[in-house]
This record gives sequence, structure tokens and C-alpha cells, in this order.
Amino acid sequence: MSVLIVGSIALDDIKTPLEEKLNLLGGSASYGAIAAANFSPVKLVGIVGDDFPDEHIALMQSRHIDLEGLQRVPGDTFRWSGEYLWDMNTRETRSVALNVFEHFSPTLPESYRATPIVLLANIAPDLQHHVLDQISQPKFVIADTMDLWINIAKDSLIRLLSRVDMLILNDGEARQLTGETSLVRAGAAIRSMGPTFVAIKKGEHGCLLFGKNGDFFSCPAYPLEDIHDPTGAGDTFAGGLAGFLASEAEEGDITFPLLRRAVVKGSVLASFNVEAFSLERLKTVTLEEIASRYAMFQQMSHFEPV
Amino acid sequence: MSVLIVGSIALDDIKTPLEEKLNLLGGSASYGAIAAANFSPVKLVGIVGDDFPDEHIALMQSRHIDLEGLQRVPGDTFRWSGEYLWDMNTRETRSVALNVFEHFSPTLPESYRATPIVLLANIAPDLQHHVLDQISQPKFVIADTMDLWINIAKDSLIRLLSRVDMLILNDGEARQLTGETSLVRAGAAIRSMGPTFVAIKKGEHGCLLFGKNGDFFSCPAYPLEDIHDPTGAGDTFAGGLAGFLASEAEEGDITFPLLRRAVVKGSVLASFNVEAFSLERLKTVTLEEIASRYAMFQQMSHFEPV
Repeated sequence: MSVLIVGSIALDDIKTPLEEKLNLLGGSASYGAIAAANFSPVKLVGIVGDDFPDEHIALMQSRHIDLEGLQRVPGDTFRWSGEYLWDMNTRETRSVALNVFEHFSPTLPESYRATPIVLLANIAPDLQHHVLDQISQPKFVIADTMDLWINIAKDSLIRLLSRVDMLILNDGEARQLTGETSLVRAGAAIRSMGPTFVAIKKGEHGCLLFGKNGDFFSCPAYPLEDIHDPTGAGDTFAGGLAGFLASEAEEGDITFPLLRRAVVKGSVLASFNVEAFSLERLKTVTLEEIASRYAMFQQMSHFEPV
Repeated sequence: MSVLIVGSIALDDIKTPLEEKLNLLGGSASYGAIAAANFSPVKLVGIVGDDFPDEHIALMQSRHIDLEGLQRVPGDTFRWSGEYLWDMNTRETRSVALNVFEHFSPTLPESYRATPIVLLANIAPDLQHHVLDQISQPKFVIADTMDLWINIAKDSLIRLLSRVDMLILNDGEARQLTGETSLVRAGAAIRSMGPTFVAIKKGEHGCLLFGKNGDFFSCPAYPLEDIHDPTGAGDTFAGGLAGFLASEAEEGDITFPLLRRAVVKGSVLASFNVEAFSLERLKTVTLEEIASRYAMFQQMSHFEPV
């Protein structure tokens, strides 16, 4: 089964306490697509300018990502610049230039319209609606979001929630969206707005997954000693999760046990991603490394019954 | 096997955003002893004044806690007053009166000196040393601590680390003690100071356990919707952990798999404790409820291999 991913494709300038790098491949769809492509065929929807380096296109082609839905137009690619403070948890956006992304309103290729798994990666909710409108009877729709959209496009985001099967967001965003300080209450409140499943990411503390009938899963975080660049960790998580679902969902329903495994796969991919700037680590990670770290996640969260 | 617990016994005034209660039973040894007594015989070392209510003594007697090491002297019991802010995570100490605790320097009863499991609950490191000096060949020594002692008694605390098998502290304290922002590095740094095992508590995010040869366990937190009073959660965790170890350690070495289970047992007890003020919930919790919540911890952290 294949997964359709729509989101931003960007050129990033990133500064950490130790390093600064310019003109890096970034954007929610870039991270999501490369992560998902480890597990299943990906159909990408996005836009870049004529300044977008061919090497990034070549990277996506090397992963057999379907680029029929990728527009390359005159103008500059979306640009984002951010800086991480000393603890690598706090991020300040230094500048954003939407450029060709500003008036992006894609018409999906005919061959994309029946894609069963859809990842609406982090972009404006109106654009997520617009893409979802063009897909006929998707099997499972996942939406990612961020604080910016809760601030400036909350109505559209809330309308989106009744159209998706799963929402992914971080702990601060879950509190912001619901007004609940308890993440357990926040997860339940978001489920009551529409999505059957909610994944609340807690950064270095792992991730909580909420489902039907009180289904609950607490996914640990991989104990990394050094984080080189947290950019794209959430996008990589969502892409890995969606790609794994697409690879496994063929045989039946998307169940809570399957989603648990998908959340761990996404966490594994995200843990690799932060080991290097941009997509450098995702470019080299192998299925063997992914399987080995998945086994580590099992080992570190296992304990015997009494 | 029995466990010796030394720590504070206090009368607390506690204010939360919703309620304020006065003259509650508190102190690290009170929480620790009542939690541990679910699993094993407890020998208590502590001091109270002549204002200490008989009902609290009766509670300890009802749990068959050995009170030969409990001094009752003229004067006032140690008093602590604190307030929790709206998120129930931030706590402000409003007042502390050491009272009879100020010059407490216990001589252990003869019957205490061969206790195999020792919990040096949260008190001044010098007092922890003084008690440990009087115990002959303990099988396993656990120390709990807090930011106050890192601030005002760091040298004594660091000397203590080479004398204990396990240190328990929270994430902020681990960072403060080591200067490391990464908890993985902090855990390793503390292990290099002496203790074979380190448990770093992360409040609503669970607990990390570090051991020999890279042994690592990530214990989830129970998804509580409402927290009524976080006071004593850490003391209850330490007591539950130590009591469970004492009940299971008879048969051999204290291994990492045994400690994993003990960390979960401690987390289970702590999750009950915060459901009510003071020790009210610990007074009523049953072994059946503990076993049932332990099974919930297993369920919520389980996922299938791929």
C-alpha cells in the first residue's frame, strides 16, 4: 500500500549552540517522505522554486518517491531559519519566507486520488483540507499540526479534526488546543473533536497514544546522549509512522496494536534523525539499523510480571 | 527480608489550587515506611515531638512497622508548609520548622543493625552517613536526595554516593548535580560517582533506571487524570521500591530485572499516593489494587515485535 504525503519542502538555515549550517534540505514533507519511504511507496505533494538543488530531487528519486505531485516553479523555495538554545529543546524562529509556497493550491495527479494512507504533514489546515478534498475514500488519514495553526487557523484545524482518523501534535500544543493541563484529559478532549486516535509527542520523554475504549500506549524515548539537530524530528516521526502503517495495513483494519508498533517505528526514525543536521542521518539509515533500534525500544521498556 | 528506613516525620500544611489542609502526616520516612510495609517488614528510624498525634503511631503499628527506632521527645514535630501552583508541578515551600529534628542524631537499636535493605530517605546527607555507619554489611543501600542537599551539603552527598548501591533523584536534581543537560549523560555521570544503579524520576513522564554495562529501563508514568496532592510521591516511590526489593531479594542477588520490577512497583505506589492528600490513599490501597495497576503499567508499555 502507498502513502500520500503533503507538506512543506524547504531550504533551512539552522543554528545550534555548537554549529550553524545553511541551505539545508528541510520541510515537513521532505522529512516525512524520506522516513516513510523506508517502509512503503510514497506519493509526494509539494512545491519548490527553481533554486531547489537537483541533488534533493535525486535523493527522493533514489527512494522511489513518486514526484508527479511535486511542482517546480519559477521563484524561490520556501525558506526557514531557526536557532536552538543551549538545552536543544527551546527553538527560536529567526525568519520565514514562504516564497513559492505562498499561493500553493495543488491539483492532485489522477494517479494520487485513490491513495489509501494519507499523511497531511504540518502545513496550513486550509491546505490540508484542500488536499483531502481530492482523495476518494482514503483508508486512514493522519494529520500533523503545530502551535502556529492553533494560533492563526484554529477554526479550520478544528473542522479538519472531524475528517481525520489520527492527529499528531506535541504536549504543549495539546494543552493549547484543549485548555487542559493533564495530557490524559487533553488526549480525551481531542478524541472528542473527531480523530479516533491521538498521538501526543513529549520530545525527550517519548509519546502517548490514545485510542478507543480507553486504549492507551506510552512509548518511551530513545536515550540519546547527543542531539545534533532536532529539526524535523516530529515530521520524521509522522512519516515513519504513516509509511509503516501503509506497509502493514494491507491485511485488514488499522488496530491499536498496529498503531502501537507504528508509533515505535516513527520514534525509532525520529531518534536517528536528530543524530545529524537536516536529513543526513535519514539518508544513511538502513532497515537493519531500524530493526535493531526497534528491538532496543522493546528491551528498554520491558519488565517482567510479578 | 526487612528494610530499614530513616528519614523525616513531619506535620504538613498543604495548599493546592483547589484545597488547603493543615496538620497532615508527612515526611519522607512516613511515606516511605507505609509504602514499603505493603511488601515487607519495616524498621523505622525517626523523631517526633510530644505534639505528634497518636493516630499516626497507631497507623504505623497497624502496618507492623517496627518503631523501636522512633524517638518521641519533648518539643514540636518537624513542620513543613507548601503550596502547589496551578499546574500541580511547581511547588513553593512556605515555611519549614525543624523543631525536634534539628539535633536528631539517632543511635540505632541493636535489633536494627543487621537489616539487609536500607533506604536512606530524603534527609541531610550527614544524617544518612550517621545511620549507615551503624549498619553492618547491608546487602543493598538506597539513598534518596533533593535539590536542597545538592545546594548546601554537596560534599557530604558526594561522599555518600560511594557508599550506596542506588541513588534516587529527580531530573532537575540530576542535571544540577552533574551539570549535564542530557539525562542519559547525567545518569552515567552519577554512576561514575559510586552507585551501581541510578533512578531519575521525571514526574508525569515516568522514570529512567540506569545500571551496569549500559543496562537501561524506561518506566512509564500512570496516566492520572487528576492529581490531588503530589506531596510524598517521590518518598512513596522510594519506599515501595525498597520494600519490594526486601520482599524479593532473599533468593539471590539484586539484579537489573528485579530492580526494573521494583521501579514499577514504586511507580504504582506513587500513582496511588497522589490521588489524595497526605497518606490518605496509601492507607486504603490494597495488594489487589497494586497488582491490578502493575498489570496496567505492563499493558500500557507493551508493544509487539515487528
